[in-house]
Amino acid sequence: MKKVAIIMGSDSDLPVVEGAIKQLKALGIETEVRVMSAHRTPEAAHEFSKNAIQNGFGVIIAAAGMAAHLGGVLAASTTLPVIAIPCSSKVLDGMDALLSSVMMPPGIPVATVGINAGKNAALLAAEILAVSNIELQAKLIEMRKDMAAQVEAKDAALQDKIKEL
Amino acid sequence: MKKVAIIMGSDSDLPVVEGAIKQLKALGIETEVRVMSAHRTPEAAHEFSKNAIQNGFGVIIAAAGMAAHLGGVLAASTTLPVIAIPCSSKVLDGMDALLSSVMMPPGIPVATVGINAGKNAALLAAEILAVSNIELQAKLIEMRKDMAAQVEAKDAALQDKIKEL
Amino acid sequence: MKKVAIIMGSDSDLPVVEGAIKQLKALGIETEVRVMSAHRTPEAAHEFSKNAIQNGFGVIIAAAGMAAHLGGVLAASTTLPVIAIPCSSKVLDGMDALLSSVMMPPGIPVATVGINAGKNAALLAAEILAVSNIELQAKLIEMRKDMAAQVEAKDAALQDKIKEL
Amino acid sequence: MKKVAIIMGSDSDLPVVEGAIKQLKALGIETEVRVMSAHRTPEAAHEFSKNAIQNGFGVIIAAAGMAAHLGGVLAASTTLPVIAIPCSSKVLDGMDALLSSVMMPPGIPVATVGINAGKNAALLAAEILAVSNIELQAKLIEMRKDMAAQVEAKDAALQDKIKEL
Amino acid sequence: MKKVAIIMGSDSDLPVVEGAIKQLKALGIETEVRVMSAHRTPEAAHEFSKNAIQNGFGVIIAAAGMAAHLGGVLAASTTLPVIAIPCSSKVLDGMDALLSSVMMPPGIPVATVGINAGKNAALLAAEILAVSNIELQAKLIEMRKDMAAQVEAKDAALQDKIKEL
Amino acid sequence: MKKVAIIMGSDSDLPVVEGAIKQLKALGIETEVRVMSAHRTPEAAHEFSKNAIQNGFGVIIAAAGMAAHLGGVLAASTTLPVIAIPCSSKVLDGMDALLSSVMMPPGIPVATVGINAGKNAALLAAEILAVSNIELQAKLIEMRKDMAAQVEAKDAALQDKIKEL
Amino acid sequence: MKKVAIIMGSDSDLPVVEGAIKQLKALGIETEVRVMSAHRTPEAAHEFSKNAIQNGFGVIIAAAGMAAHLGGVLAASTTLPVIAIPCSSKVLDGMDALLSSVMMPPGIPVATVGINAGKNAALLAAEILAVSNIELQAKLIEMRKDMAAQVEAKDAALQDKIKEL
Amino acid sequence: MKKVAIIMGSDSDLPVVEGAIKQLKALGIETEVRVMSAHRTPEAAHEFSKNAIQNGFGVIIAAAGMAAHLGGVLAASTTLPVIAIPCSSKVLDGMDALLSSVMMPPGIPVATVGINAGKNAALLAAEILAVSNIELQAKLIEMRKDMAAQVEAKDAALQDKIKEL
Repeated sequence: MKKVAIIMGSDSDLPVVEGAIKQLKALGIETEVRVMSAHRTPEAAHEFSKNAIQNGFGVIIAAAGMAAHLGGVLAASTTLPVIAIPCSSKVLDGMDALLSSVMMPPGIPVATVGINAGKNAALLAAEILAVSNIELQAKLIEMRKDMAAQVEAKDAALQDKIKEL
Repeated sequence: MKKVAIIMGSDSDLPVVEGAIKQLKALGIETEVRVMSAHRTPEAAHEFSKNAIQNGFGVIIAAAGMAAHLGGVLAASTTLPVIAIPCSSKVLDGMDALLSSVMMPPGIPVATVGINAGKNAALLAAEILAVSNIELQAKLIEMRKDMAAQVEAKDAALQDKIKEL
Repeated sequence: MKKVAIIMGSDSDLPVVEGAIKQLKALGIETEVRVMSAHRTPEAAHEFSKNAIQNGFGVIIAAAGMAAHLGGVLAASTTLPVIAIPCSSKVLDGMDALLSSVMMPPGIPVATVGINAGKNAALLAAEILAVSNIELQAKLIEMRKDMAAQVEAKDAALQDKIKEL
Repeated sequence: MKKVAIIMGSDSDLPVVEGAIKQLKALGIETEVRVMSAHRTPEAAHEFSKNAIQNGFGVIIAAAGMAAHLGGVLAASTTLPVIAIPCSSKVLDGMDALLSSVMMPPGIPVATVGINAGKNAALLAAEILAVSNIELQAKLIEMRKDMAAQVEAKDAALQDKIKEL
Repeated sequence: MKKVAIIMGSDSDLPVVEGAIKQLKALGIETEVRVMSAHRTPEAAHEFSKNAIQNGFGVIIAAAGMAAHLGGVLAASTTLPVIAIPCSSKVLDGMDALLSSVMMPPGIPVATVGINAGKNAALLAAEILAVSNIELQAKLIEMRKDMAAQVEAKDAALQDKIKEL
Repeated sequence: MKKVAIIMGSDSDLPVVEGAIKQLKALGIETEVRVMSAHRTPEAAHEFSKNAIQNGFGVIIAAAGMAAHLGGVLAASTTLPVIAIPCSSKVLDGMDALLSSVMMPPGIPVATVGINAGKNAALLAAEILAVSNIELQAKLIEMRKDMAAQVEAKDAALQDKIKEL
Repeated sequence: MKKVAIIMGSDSDLPVVEGAIKQLKALGIETEVRVMSAHRTPEAAHEFSKNAIQNGFGVIIAAAGMAAHLGGVLAASTTLPVIAIPCSSKVLDGMDALLSSVMMPPGIPVATVGINAGKNAALLAAEILAVSNIELQAKLIEMRKDMAAQVEAKDAALQDKIKEL
Repeated sequence: MKKVAIIMGSDSDLPVVEGAIKQLKALGIETEVRVMSAHRTPEAAHEFSKNAIQNGFGVIIAAAGMAAHLGGVLAASTTLPVIAIPCSSKVLDGMDALLSSVMMPPGIPVATVGINAGKNAALLAAEILAVSNIELQAKLIEMRKDMAAQVEAKDAALQDKIKEL
């Protein structure tokens, strides 16, 4: 199975990215996690992306805030699917990063998930790898059942809390 | 190679979706294009999505405007990657559809591309299928070179236009 | 009198929903409060909504945050009035949930109240039931008088506070 | 069956309101359509709303643009459900009217539908009246089936259009 | 000299309004401060506004949050200048109150100041009264000189702080 | 009676300002209309504002778009009430001009009316002058009655149009 | 005198860029105008920027729309001042390009001008070159005087137009 | 080498400006830091700006929040490059200051950096001065290398943290 690269623009994005790392680990998907900046280490980012296919990656996840160019810069140098996690920063609640990630020009798509949605980026990466991997597909289907069961458990637990209101 | 489903919430979304259909055709990817509504034909949408894997689909593209629930509703019933194209409607410029598509809760990701970005949705679908398909990967790499060449041709053509200013 | 269903997309929405539960209880309206997710338990949500009329419900309240599809998904499966409470989450202040709730396509309305407006959702549900229930109508009119009296009391109390400034 | 009042803040809102009038007529619901302004004829609006119950109304629809106070002003004088249609005007795409309508303070709810969503306001009004009216409920259920059939017909028609692309 | 009325929609707006009260007091302008709600005590608000001229008021200040209809409702019943202070509430940072206050329809203006700008509302009221009051005009001119002197003092004080950086 | 100055930042703002000029003329208020730019003729703007009181002005109206600094710049040099009309330009629908006008720092208020609201700026200016002018007050009260009558006439006219639907 | 590079992400940005080209020409500043894309020709963009100092450039202007990464990508490879012109595209009015351009992370600034502000980008570039060029400084000061004269001429011309109202 | 002026509209902007002061000091660039208000000390601001060239300044940095007119007001009186730092205040997250700073009318550019981006304003000022100063250029290039090295160091450090997840 191909690996998933998780690139963050700054190590301050780690709290968001942690959710992605844990989720991929839980699904048994090998990851490489890196700090690389579209603006401070552009050549490293370009090189990483350009060589990602031959280095065994199947998906790249890019987490960045503010003028979040990282997803687009990585996507410019590979035809692998690139998933952007727009990260919220001190102002604007991540709306800047969302628009900077999702509004890509025709020709170079970036698959954008919700603001700070580390876990969903990982699940999307897994869904992508699962297109050609029946075992991973089965794990994801199992996870969905677990999620449904959790909702049902919370629904049941709620009935007691409600009585106390 | 797996097929790509393109579901639009209303046939008025066809102008946006056309770009996706043509792009996938150009890449030799088989598509099925459907009108199905998260709200007017919810059971049809649910059934389509639930059976998409066994019906040979590898990716689902959902195009919808306003409170664009289609991507999320389809993603709820499959573990295939679902790509949302938020469509602009008469007011709000597609910002409603963008937020309705991208801000999915943890557990059910939707890969969102730009507002009205039909072509990019198709390319993202192709990139996803290409993860396990070297020939398609090669076509995408070729396309990137063509795009670069087009930019260079436009750059050359510009030099003449500029002189006239 | 018909019952009011309060569905929340996640049990983390309980603080918002509490206001609704208490208000309906105070008006003597029977409620059923459930956790059901448009994305994690879509079939349960669909089933609940489809059977709501025959199960004695008159109104459904849906509380959800982010890409708040719950109101729309429930409304798609019933002709009962569905009231959406857009809940704010960690970013975007509930603007995502508001647009996802209110901008429904023609044919399937969702009656949207303010962000986190649990109490108002309950009052709207009561107003709806009161259309054909004179006693409930009378209670609501009484409540309005109480509210006015409270404003007047605050106005009176203010006069003392003001002197201290 | 109770009547539905449709109040518009200005006769320039008629294009939006027409969809509501036609929809209610199609469902056999009696309407009264009025121009009354929260700011230019506040006393008339207040009087209308105060007497709406005894004048046989079951729901009030308020269509207004800009600082759309009409819904709130009418809701302040009645305990009938008040539905607001935020209308877009020359600037801001109706976002001003949406926020002015939906963000009501605790105690006085306004059921807000989408920007310019005349038809949905009418359907919501019908759903409200149908809570205690089985025949109207049946008509609404029939309408949903028609809508689904229309989507299916469009889906079928699309298959031919697609071939030409 | 005419009095200034300060109406707040809820006593929770007092922290914003305090700045206005103190400023008017400092300028020797008589005020009446009231809690009156456009939605919970609409008739009281209407009566107050309708009688404001004959009760000796020259300006009305209205402080309200969310769907801030108070300014517009008061302006509808008087030809006195009405100044709105849009108040921020738990979500949306007062943008809802700003648009609800400022985007009034042609014919009924509301003079809107910044979000939570209690002091500026008071100063604007004073400027309005000073149009026909030379003594108040002189006080305002004096205040401007004081403000300039304060900025100059801060500029001087800054030079020391800067050295420590 | 004091005069009203209408300053526009660019002669392209004339369509917005025309409504103000006509309204003031209709009320018999003398105006001086000028093009002066906060950025291109800052000294002229400053001089005009500084001398406005002694030149017989009672109110200044400032119409400007984009980073609409004009209102603030004029307000900085006078204690007369300054009314800003935020003008919409090719992008952003006047939201830039609205925020640039209304969010003034403590100490220097600008009375902001709606985007492109020329007529309302004029009416607000008239209301300000009317605080100490009973005849003008009477004219404004008369105008309100005319407005109400117009709404009533439109309401009557509507009843015929409605029948044709 | 150093040259100014004007890079546009797509030749569709030419209408915006034309204003910049003409303005620089009018000031006698040599320009090189290029089409280079941050995403379609990233290596060309990187190379251009990296060599810009030694190729005699003093400023780089980058015009791009949507997720406008061009300014940031060019800035990442040079320490020359990079000026971004956020261009509006079919939706969102350029707000996406503005945030993508201006919200750069610490360390790599991009000097952002207004949406579609081609002329101002050119003037800013000229102001930058004029810091060390007294002749150019003099031309800019002359231009300011011309602008002021134009405003004054428009002010004079307005007086006639006004009379016709 | 020319000096850099840092003007803040209020001493409460010091936390944002500190980053700029330290950065310029680190680069050996002489600064003058002042509190001057576009609205409270307009003449001082105008005088400062008008004389900035002859007083040895090469760049002016203006930090202001809310309706941030300071950058525009300073730019109106000089042809030096003016850099605006839009500062966030209690509401609106600096979006008001951003639009007030960046959307300048044609003729008077303001080079805007990100919200609260003190450090980037300083670096942009340095880049501007470095256009004609090879030594400063060299320092900036060195700084870029340091930044890249820091990113690489964080990338290395991350590898250990990751293992613990």
